[in-house]
Amino acid sequence: MPDQPRVEFRTAPERYRHWRLATEGPIATLTMDVDEQGGIVSGYELKLNSYDLGVDIELYDAVQRLRFEHPEVRTVVITSGKLKIFCAGANIRMLAASPHGWKVNFCKFTNETRNGIEDATAHSGQTYLAAVNGTASGGGYELALACEHIMLIDDRSSAVSLPELPLLGVLPGTGGLTRVSDKRHVRRDLADYFSTRAEGIGGKKAVQWRLVDEAVPRPRWDETVAERAAELAARSGRPQDGEGVALTEMSKTRDDDAITYDHIEARLDRDTGKVDISVKGPQNDPPAGIAEDPRTRSAEFWPLAVTRELDDLILDLRTNETELGTWVFRTQGDPAKVLAYDELLLNSKDNWFANEVLHYLKRTLRRLDVTSRSLIAVIEPGSCFAGSLLELALAADRSFQLAGVFEDKNPDAEPATITLGDMNLGPLTMSNGLTRLQTRFWGDEAGYEAAAKRKNEALEAEDAADLGLITFAPDDIDWDEEIRIATEERASFSPDALTGLEANYRFAGPETMETKIFGRLSAWQNWIFNRPNAAGPDGALRRFGTGQRAVFDRKRV
Amino acid sequence: MPDQPRVEFRTAPERYRHWRLATEGPIATLTMDVDEQGGIVSGYELKLNSYDLGVDIELYDAVQRLRFEHPEVRTVVITSGKLKIFCAGANIRMLAASPHGWKVNFCKFTNETRNGIEDATAHSGQTYLAAVNGTASGGGYELALACEHIMLIDDRSSAVSLPELPLLGVLPGTGGLTRVSDKRHVRRDLADYFSTRAEGIGGKKAVQWRLVDEAVPRPRWDETVAERAAELAARSGRPQDGEGVALTEMSKTRDDDAITYDHIEARLDRDTGKVDISVKGPQNDPPAGIAEDPRTRSAEFWPLAVTRELDDLILDLRTNETELGTWVFRTQGDPAKVLAYDELLLNSKDNWFANEVLHYLKRTLRRLDVTSRSLIAVIEPGSCFAGSLLELALAADRSFQLAGVFEDKNPDAEPATITLGDMNLGPLTMSNGLTRLQTRFWGDEAGYEAAAKRKNEALEAEDAADLGLITFAPDDIDWDEEIRIATEERASFSPDALTGLEANYRFAGPETMETKIFGRLSAWQNWIFNRPNAAGPDGALRRFGTGQRAVFDRKRV
Repeated sequence: MPDQPRVEFRTAPERYRHWRLATEGPIATLTMDVDEQGGIVSGYELKLNSYDLGVDIELYDAVQRLRFEHPEVRTVVITSGKLKIFCAGANIRMLAASPHGWKVNFCKFTNETRNGIEDATAHSGQTYLAAVNGTASGGGYELALACEHIMLIDDRSSAVSLPELPLLGVLPGTGGLTRVSDKRHVRRDLADYFSTRAEGIGGKKAVQWRLVDEAVPRPRWDETVAERAAELAARSGRPQDGEGVALTEMSKTRDDDAITYDHIEARLDRDTGKVDISVKGPQNDPPAGIAEDPRTRSAEFWPLAVTRELDDLILDLRTNETELGTWVFRTQGDPAKVLAYDELLLNSKDNWFANEVLHYLKRTLRRLDVTSRSLIAVIEPGSCFAGSLLELALAADRSFQLAGVFEDKNPDAEPATITLGDMNLGPLTMSNGLTRLQTRFWGDEAGYEAAAKRKNEALEAEDAADLGLITFAPDDIDWDEEIRIATEERASFSPDALTGLEANYRFAGPETMETKIFGRLSAWQNWIFNRPNAAGPDGALRRFGTGQRAVFDRKRV
Repeated sequence: MPDQPRVEFRTAPERYRHWRLATEGPIATLTMDVDEQGGIVSGYELKLNSYDLGVDIELYDAVQRLRFEHPEVRTVVITSGKLKIFCAGANIRMLAASPHGWKVNFCKFTNETRNGIEDATAHSGQTYLAAVNGTASGGGYELALACEHIMLIDDRSSAVSLPELPLLGVLPGTGGLTRVSDKRHVRRDLADYFSTRAEGIGGKKAVQWRLVDEAVPRPRWDETVAERAAELAARSGRPQDGEGVALTEMSKTRDDDAITYDHIEARLDRDTGKVDISVKGPQNDPPAGIAEDPRTRSAEFWPLAVTRELDDLILDLRTNETELGTWVFRTQGDPAKVLAYDELLLNSKDNWFANEVLHYLKRTLRRLDVTSRSLIAVIEPGSCFAGSLLELALAADRSFQLAGVFEDKNPDAEPATITLGDMNLGPLTMSNGLTRLQTRFWGDEAGYEAAAKRKNEALEAEDAADLGLITFAPDDIDWDEEIRIATEERASFSPDALTGLEANYRFAGPETMETKIFGRLSAWQNWIFNRPNAAGPDGALRRFGTGQRAVFDRKRV
């Protein structure tokens, strides 16, 4: 793979090359029509509606916009603009040519996007309908699996399939295995058979095996899709008369040393392998109410603006700055204002827009949880780690809160505090279904209760440490040294071992389909991606399409 | 690593080189005193009570014997015979020199043994107490983590530690990360800090952080260990007057082509990469009752004998025959007799010995579930896939049941049947906490009910297929061809992809600490084991102890 250009995740429908987004009343149609020549890097053609990261960036953008810009949309139909092909999945030449990290990162993003589709169905009243009007193979079927209802055209040739194992020697790693078993409830032996059968399964058998919900003959296709879309729309609680909020282009400047938005600044420190991220709290008090005040219903609304910036920053750093292994989070502002915005959102949960902002923040923090970077929160005087912004510290692998103040710099400052709010006690669940606070105190009910009781109280370092809400509370004298050692030490460890450590420790307690996808399925896939049987010069992924059979080391591991 | 000799898992206390097993009334003491020169392969010394597969085979044997041969034992104290060292964990030179498959297989077995320790505590009234009388690092601390209660000597030098990440660039993969978070409930940020601190943590802080249960000064050590052992023993429901059942040496013949026991025969087919395994049902009706009949209380008792053989076979094949990727299970005998033995066991669950046999069968089937081999069950006339033996078919990735009979060979035979019994409906849970039948019908309550209702009914192929209990029901004409194609096709796929596929599809539904260890933790560890940062020539594992620092590719993945 040639040198990758810096990947930019910001886009908009008018710039899409691979998707068409059309809405008609409560029904939106997302048509996949991939531009073969539109690969995000050179060296492959995106034939048969196969996709790469660039295609998926557009899909992600569309899913986001539908939630914010289209309150009227209640069903989203995903279909194909190509004849007889729904989607052939991730482009194989792209996968074969990509370095390990690119493959893993690409899969993570596509997984997050599919989880976002399920999140819209579950929490937004926007139900996704897969109108599979041609063959859906591999990632193409996995895209359908993320939809609530799967319709397959019954034309004696179209089928759904997971040919990754037989053809490529890898797994259906974009949720495929997990959703087949845990969502579609396909019996395990049938699932096994299906996943070894490159040509897939269509027609009635696909319905019988639960691979799809219905198989519809071509003459009745359009009508049945419309019917089903209308039925799903009828179940939705989206508003009848809501006005969309345009996701206008964010202001962002980006060079080799810094990424700067309105509310977030990231400084990239290549010498020490870390990024210093500073998040600004709101400058003003929140408006009185979501419904009443037009200032809230805009992309400038602080909770939405800061979430969009954080989301973009995570994606940018994750994709473009793989050698910066530690992210250090600071905040700056008035904790009371953060809590006031939180309160406004939570009091307006029935409002569709407030609901969208809350779930977007939830998803963005989840993105942080599965990010393979060490996360450190640094809590200093003048910071606003309260409520929603405290989640950054709760998501961190370690946190440091200054005991007292910086005597040299500002002896009269108020000491740093953290404040738990209602935002920490429910709405912002991790993908394991628990809040970060619950996960932190998993198995320690008394610890959880003791902390939760101190809600809305500004806690200085000693209290916060006693309650187990932060990791360390060094004073002025030790502060710089402790943080320096922590970050330098982190940079000295094996990046791979850190990834594994964090992927385990961040997810105590129960597992869900989502954590199974990132923990079990992705971990096996990453292992396979690193094995000569897949990625070696004679491996299945590299040999696909060459006419030569893969050569396998037959040892089972 | 030099050519590995064939590994034999059968051993007995009189042959132990690394452990001493002593019992005194209700208290057993297992003393680890590793023979430095006793490595199972050459090339390393087992210094500082470090262990390799050979050491762990003895531990596994001791844990098993304690359950069967020592009904009087209620507490098992694990301690060290070395001065100031409890156990240094897996031997690093062994790990560094081992091929990938050996490392993975070794870790799997050690994980199973530690799960077995927890199983004895939970289900056998034999509670394990870790008397950590010196430093416990890495796998040494992980061994303690498998115990119910951890005592650490408080001598200002002994500590517990997980130095894998900082020193070796790998994970504490023998349950370490999972048990620290999900069993000990160590807070995630403290766990993170602890796992990056090579020297570990001792004394009161280890107690405060929940890493150990108590820290006891040397002068009070012996007395306190004895006290605690007695307390744990007092909670047990083990019998006062039970008579142990000697696990006498199994009869086994083994060459390159076959492994033969009294009840199981395995033929190794190196050309096709498969093993044909035939399990014989009981020859006679069971005795009238467990308590009354001395014939039951012996290693010859069919359910125990066949379980021991299956256990040994799995371990032998898994370790010694890594290129035989498909195991084909057949059974032979009278289904009624299998069900009669099952009934005897289930009716005697309150009897300690019946309880042990049941849990041993449960554990052995769990070993099958996590075995990275494709499992196929072939159900023919004359077979006895009923109750406990039906679990082999339910554990399989696919099953074939002959519809009708072999017209050429034996037109007058009774058609093949399968029979569900009570043994399939509760006691033999998988590590996800569900039975194999529940896992099979996960999300399909109606399917589960329909099948369970047919309990004790001999089901021919068509019925079994309709109920979803088998995968395919070919007739005489297609039989050989279908099975041949299935096994040949399996042999043509990437062995790694099959491992990943099976590790996902076999575990639908909920996750437990045990499935998290095999699914999440082991998968990440295997990935790391395969990465240059650990196992490459300049990786941390290979460079440990050379005086040279590891060289890392700093890209985070």
